[in-house]
Amino acid sequence: MARKYKHLGVRLRLVLGPDIAIGPGKVDLLEKVKETGSIAEAGRTMGMSYKRAWQLIGTMNDAFKQPVVVTSRGGASKGGATLTQFGEELLTRFRQLQRETEHVAESTLTDLKNALANGERTN
Amino acid sequence: MARKYKHLGVRLRLVLGPDIAIGPGKVDLLEKVKETGSIAEAGRTMGMSYKRAWQLIGTMNDAFKQPVVVTSRGGASKGGATLTQFGEELLTRFRQLQRETEHVAESTLTDLKNALANGERTN
Repeated sequence: MARKYKHLGVRLRLVLGPDIAIGPGKVDLLEKVKETGSIAEAGRTMGMSYKRAWQLIGTMNDAFKQPVVVTSRGGASKGGATLTQFGEELLTRFRQLQRETEHVAESTLTDLKNALANGERTN
Repeated sequence: MARKYKHLGVRLRLVLGPDIAIGPGKVDLLEKVKETGSIAEAGRTMGMSYKRAWQLIGTMNDAFKQPVVVTSRGGASKGGATLTQFGEELLTRFRQLQRETEHVAESTLTDLKNALANGERTN
């Protein structure tokens, strides 16, 4: 019945407007695009469909004045994706904020984990 | 295509274990239970079904050593729900952490809102 959570710890989402939020899914995807140079490959490493990966990138590219990712061989190609300077900035700032939030949340997270009933895996 | 977000700003979720996370939905519900003294009424003010409200409370009550809410007239009753001391503590600490996170995130949130394309409502 309960949903399963893959990543323990603090999850942060910035809701910027009624149709646009930046959270771990989009930011992880940006990071993987940076690492792999490919939206398809980035999605694949996250267990995400090609279509879904393009949707998330498209949502970000449409939401901001500047795109976060550009592709060198047109939208339908599988290769040649690069973060723009703005995309890099978005990634860096979100990661920094994530670290700061983890720092701020540390004692609460520890206390709540210690309050879990026996049998609940805390790590 | 894009999802709609009702609440702008920072959304925080503490993933404590593979089956238990504490986020805005559960915490808002605890706050409404405190205000209304009723799980049914608390759910109603949030536009949530009676069943869903009970599920969320049940997930928390099951996950922790101590319950977060107790009911005075048994599980099937619609009235007499109270936060336990632990439930109060959970609510208070999450709210505090939320405020601290909002403080830490303020400049990033402002900059990202300013980077939104024209036509995106930022408030």
